[in-house]
Amino acid sequence: MALSEFGLIQDYFADLDLGCAHVIQGVGDDCALLAAPRPGCELAISTDTLIGGVHFPGQAPANCIAERALAVNLSDLNAMGAEPYAFTLSITLPAVDTDWLADFARGLGKQALAYNIPLVGGDTTRGPLSITIHIIGQLPQGQALLRSGASVGDSIYVSGTLGDAAAALQLIKAGELHNSDAAYLLHRFYAPEIDFVLSTALRGIATSAIDVSDGLLADLRHILNSSRVGAVINVDDVPLSPEILRVGGEQQALAWALGGGDDYRLCFTMAAKYASALRRQGLQLTCIGEIVAGDGLRCQTADGAQYQPERSGYLHF
Amino acid sequence: MALSEFGLIQDYFADLDLGCAHVIQGVGDDCALLAAPRPGCELAISTDTLIGGVHFPGQAPANCIAERALAVNLSDLNAMGAEPYAFTLSITLPAVDTDWLADFARGLGKQALAYNIPLVGGDTTRGPLSITIHIIGQLPQGQALLRSGASVGDSIYVSGTLGDAAAALQLIKAGELHNSDAAYLLHRFYAPEIDFVLSTALRGIATSAIDVSDGLLADLRHILNSSRVGAVINVDDVPLSPEILRVGGEQQALAWALGGGDDYRLCFTMAAKYASALRRQGLQLTCIGEIVAGDGLRCQTADGAQYQPERSGYLHF
Repeated sequence: MALSEFGLIQDYFADLDLGCAHVIQGVGDDCALLAAPRPGCELAISTDTLIGGVHFPGQAPANCIAERALAVNLSDLNAMGAEPYAFTLSITLPAVDTDWLADFARGLGKQALAYNIPLVGGDTTRGPLSITIHIIGQLPQGQALLRSGASVGDSIYVSGTLGDAAAALQLIKAGELHNSDAAYLLHRFYAPEIDFVLSTALRGIATSAIDVSDGLLADLRHILNSSRVGAVINVDDVPLSPEILRVGGEQQALAWALGGGDDYRLCFTMAAKYASALRRQGLQLTCIGEIVAGDGLRCQTADGAQYQPERSGYLHF
Repeated sequence: MALSEFGLIQDYFADLDLGCAHVIQGVGDDCALLAAPRPGCELAISTDTLIGGVHFPGQAPANCIAERALAVNLSDLNAMGAEPYAFTLSITLPAVDTDWLADFARGLGKQALAYNIPLVGGDTTRGPLSITIHIIGQLPQGQALLRSGASVGDSIYVSGTLGDAAAALQLIKAGELHNSDAAYLLHRFYAPEIDFVLSTALRGIATSAIDVSDGLLADLRHILNSSRVGAVINVDDVPLSPEILRVGGEQQALAWALGGGDDYRLCFTMAAKYASALRRQGLQLTCIGEIVAGDGLRCQTADGAQYQPERSGYLHF
């Protein structure tokens, strides 16, 4: 007997509402019902679609696809300084594969629990593999980390090593999954950790923020365009993991870090005076450059020489 | 030059935020920011994906696809008794076709304006044509129209003629678009009107409600299952438009009305005593049966004979 879409959703995803008190009605009616956000809070909402063969390898494990799909959306909340509130899942599948669905639900459930965000609704359709998550967050009114507030003289920070996800994709494409560094890098690709402690600490301090999804330089350009400023990046300060240095060597690792997407670190700007207090809280941040007047993005090495990056980010079209 | 996803969204959809006061930040940052709902209100959220060739003909006009995609989601809010608040659009396209995008944005804008619902964010990816809309509504706390409250003795109502969309699909498949009734039926398929006045009036009166998306009998069964009751439907009372009677004849028209999806009328239950007051407000409702004890769904003709429906609704899998 064919499974109906209702059966699919209810069988595999119904217990992912985590019993949260603000979920008045979860999966199973025409809409989910959520309590209003905390008094004094506003809503942050975002949506991201992942297509098989475009945003992840078509043969990727289902639990990894699920973890990554939710992480990518959590990252958007994080870049805004918002806390997770609820999400919905729209999934398009070529056929009903119960093993695949069970693995997918397991990965999603693990991730949802880790970030305490309930799944409250969804839609299931037949077609080429595609996953759209819509995410809702809450944050205190007027405290969002926008892209548009960077000012001349602000320092530019990233929240951890960059390029790991691009290196992982390279390993997947080359079939080099037995490399001793592959496990770490694949984990960074499929399950990037989203550091909500950092973004919460940045409220009222950072002048702009974005998550590194399309590549550091491409994403930083969004900040520069929105804030109408320029930047100088010291490429020798960009943090690189030992793993990508071993896998790719110094030059390739830097190219991955500047141009490769999918890292889901934060890139943000703030006055340099706040950095030490944040580091004392155990938060990870590395200064990689400075906001300057104008509209250019200049990369330079430690000796001040101009550095020409290989590519500037991933475009879907 | 290739268009980036950012360019796509900003070029075609950025002005669809309608300047609404509750949109603090629309398209163009990591998240959209929305003001909390009105005091005393909760949130209703839903999502629906439409796939080309599955939920609409692959060659359908882009503006019609857009109108239908938003209507389908508005219908979920309506079935809950919620008012439109905001929506996001995730669109997957096989290629950038600027004429198609302009037509799509025009249809979406027309529909968004008609229902006063702003587009606040989205995602654009490359792949087989697919449209996911995620919709947010608001409604007074505790007044949602759930599927689970139908009681024995309640009357069952529908909010207008049924089967029109199924007839339209038949005409499209047969290429009979010059039929004199085709224009009306195609409009019913592509741009079903969502009657928020009715659903608002039903708050506190209706005991259950659902929108007719998968077919009257299939959707009514969701109410019966959630409410743990049965129903008797008088098939001769099911309202049929003159157009489908002319196109299909009486027997086929009834089969479309009972089994065909996509009508986006409301099916709801309430005590019969409320009907005349609602009709005096100019609201359209037709009693088609009664909630009974048990868990069965019986269809009968005016003379009380059992009627065996042809099919029971559309299943994606």
